[in-house]
Amino acid sequence: MTSVPHVADTGAHRIVVVGAGFGGLEAVYRLRGVDAVTTLVDQRNHHLFQPLLYQVATASLATSEIAWPIRYLLRGRKDVTTLLGTVTGVDVAAKCVRLDDGQMLPYDTLVLATGAGHAYFGHDEWEPFAPGLKTLEDATTIRRRILTAFERAERADDPAEQAALLTFVIIGAGPTGVELAGTIAEMARTTLPDDFRNIDTRKARVMLVEAGQRVLANFSEELSAYAHRSLEKLGVEVALGHAVSDCNVDGVVYGDTHLPARTIIWAAGVRASPAAEWLGVAADRAGRLQVNADLTVPDHPDIFAIGDTVSIAAPDGSLVPGIAPAAKQEGRYVANAIKQRLRGETPAPFRYRHDGSLAQIGKHLAVIDFGRFRLRGALAWWIWGIAHIYFLIGLRNRLAVALNWLWIHTLDQRGARLITQGRAVLDDPAVRTGETVPQRLKSAR
Amino acid sequence: MTSVPHVADTGAHRIVVVGAGFGGLEAVYRLRGVDAVTTLVDQRNHHLFQPLLYQVATASLATSEIAWPIRYLLRGRKDVTTLLGTVTGVDVAAKCVRLDDGQMLPYDTLVLATGAGHAYFGHDEWEPFAPGLKTLEDATTIRRRILTAFERAERADDPAEQAALLTFVIIGAGPTGVELAGTIAEMARTTLPDDFRNIDTRKARVMLVEAGQRVLANFSEELSAYAHRSLEKLGVEVALGHAVSDCNVDGVVYGDTHLPARTIIWAAGVRASPAAEWLGVAADRAGRLQVNADLTVPDHPDIFAIGDTVSIAAPDGSLVPGIAPAAKQEGRYVANAIKQRLRGETPAPFRYRHDGSLAQIGKHLAVIDFGRFRLRGALAWWIWGIAHIYFLIGLRNRLAVALNWLWIHTLDQRGARLITQGRAVLDDPAVRTGETVPQRLKSAR
Repeated sequence: MTSVPHVADTGAHRIVVVGAGFGGLEAVYRLRGVDAVTTLVDQRNHHLFQPLLYQVATASLATSEIAWPIRYLLRGRKDVTTLLGTVTGVDVAAKCVRLDDGQMLPYDTLVLATGAGHAYFGHDEWEPFAPGLKTLEDATTIRRRILTAFERAERADDPAEQAALLTFVIIGAGPTGVELAGTIAEMARTTLPDDFRNIDTRKARVMLVEAGQRVLANFSEELSAYAHRSLEKLGVEVALGHAVSDCNVDGVVYGDTHLPARTIIWAAGVRASPAAEWLGVAADRAGRLQVNADLTVPDHPDIFAIGDTVSIAAPDGSLVPGIAPAAKQEGRYVANAIKQRLRGETPAPFRYRHDGSLAQIGKHLAVIDFGRFRLRGALAWWIWGIAHIYFLIGLRNRLAVALNWLWIHTLDQRGARLITQGRAVLDDPAVRTGETVPQRLKSAR
Repeated sequence: MTSVPHVADTGAHRIVVVGAGFGGLEAVYRLRGVDAVTTLVDQRNHHLFQPLLYQVATASLATSEIAWPIRYLLRGRKDVTTLLGTVTGVDVAAKCVRLDDGQMLPYDTLVLATGAGHAYFGHDEWEPFAPGLKTLEDATTIRRRILTAFERAERADDPAEQAALLTFVIIGAGPTGVELAGTIAEMARTTLPDDFRNIDTRKARVMLVEAGQRVLANFSEELSAYAHRSLEKLGVEVALGHAVSDCNVDGVVYGDTHLPARTIIWAAGVRASPAAEWLGVAADRAGRLQVNADLTVPDHPDIFAIGDTVSIAAPDGSLVPGIAPAAKQEGRYVANAIKQRLRGETPAPFRYRHDGSLAQIGKHLAVIDFGRFRLRGALAWWIWGIAHIYFLIGLRNRLAVALNWLWIHTLDQRGARLITQGRAVLDDPAVRTGETVPQRLKSAR
């Protein structure tokens, strides 16, 4: 057993935070000044602004505009060490986190902020055909599929195949599904038409398939209905009350409908990280840990768990939603709780405060549900835009995102229409079946 | 045999251009107004500004800032159809270009502008250990390797392994090699030091290994010497007169030196595209076609070849260099030659005019060799920067690149320090051996 060099026992209290998403990063920020050494582990080198990830998937933003190197964000915090690594388990008896290469990372207090991934409800075989959107790689993969579908349609000589290539199905009508569907429809209708000679991209079909009875179910019924109408105006076909029964190489099946489609995107469900498995504790159907009122794991008073990997009841009895502000509140709470405990105090229970929900529908439209204050349309879109730019980190990224949005809104041009990570052999079966295609194409253009 | 839909025989003269690099794209631009239908085929969807590709590889620029969708650039040209596809051959008897899926693209005039890739001088087995820099994927691969080496060094507990991780070897001291070496050294010395806790990134070794007797051999001796001194001031170790005899998982071998290194970048040689093979004509040692004075292929008067895939003598007897301005001059010439021939005229021979060479050494330093006019240092850097921004396409990208450079030059921060395309398992043997690692890492952070 090797250990990571810096955590040789100095006698200081050792805090390990796993995951540098909104919750984990906020916890580390708020631990400033604590009498402890902190280690932050993430399996990626960057913190990702997930609320705008769909804009990378739809060619509006560059990857680097919504991601920051974690260690750069913490460069001024000499009490924090950032490690790039994948946690493979937790040895609760020895109080150590196990990393990918067998290195052990000892902790006195552990914070698990390990997030969630896609869930296919027992149908993992759908994943190659219907990728989800959680990481930058997911986003560039979806971007590549959308753009490649138009390219293949331009070359297709079979009308049925051409129609399937120009059919885009988004499964799940939560904020991500709505934002993807609206943006793809807008791209087909305003960004792309002049660029093609053999196809009319305005005829592309964008389908939003949802098992529930309305889009944006977490918003008020009135805003849901508005979003529904707005999507239809943008050209999105909305199919409610339809659970998907199959995704395959030919398309998607729901109810009696078999819809031939070459591009399917999964926005229907998430599954928590394996944190519950690491600890050997109970989890709900979505893999989420139950936690105590102080966000510690039952029977593990030294282990906190926050964010999308846990299930917490809000004061109104509903579940705390899997959104960035909730994870940040929990991260802030845990940092304070650790500080209080190190002073010998007992933290008061965590209490979630819901600030509101926002979703963009099209380039001029958004819905905002702050409970008492509800807004929709162009003004909501401006608030949505300003809020998102405000929450981005750093002036350069704010300027860059604002610049991209300016171009989209004035010229209908998207700044990141790149097909990368794959070769352009359009009929490569790997593209159709969704396998990874060879990463590099050698030599000649 | 299927054919691409749009090229049904309309009676118009059919021009097919293969490759949308500097040469091919310029040819299509200059064909504006010609009485013909033009098809541009590229195996990527984007035109790439290769002179700044090293800045993507060194985390300074985002991929989308130096690449543009080809069909967007040609959206206003209704006489041009852009196809994403890989050419697999040319049927010179039937006058058809063969595409990846068997589709045939008939031509009356063919322009081959298919570029070049890396050449390992008969040692293709070195490629996994020493990737070259030609495509966006190459750049993000090299960026991932550089950044991952620092990450692994931060976690390493073996000093020898740590030293190998902090050794970066660039093979070849042409402009790309010099620019990469200078930028990596600068990154290690000014961008990264505050971000790490267990390593001092300023102690990273950056080696530039060159078989010839000076760096930037295409520049004047005086500028070469200046570049050499400047690189050394930045902390680059320059080893001249050393041909590399092996690249492997442990490092690089040249002369009697076996240098343990985990990051090796190949900037030493190029090989032309297989255009000569498609035509079954003679090629030189680097695979380059010989062409006539009017840039047609001998015995194929309807086929032009330009750019890095051909070997042409300049008026002074030297070879036309493989740089963007040369390819553009050839593209412009060919467009005019086609117009003249359609009018029944005979084009005058192509005559290359060398405007000069530029290379950036560090963030304030560059060398410029315009023949009579030579410049070095900070002023040269400003000219270099302004020239490169000028040649970028579109106001948005110019602003975005200028914004990134401003941040680098005032704050020493680089905007695109992202490790993507791979999972973070640092000791994954696939990372060490350079194989493609699984593209997506499922679920939990």
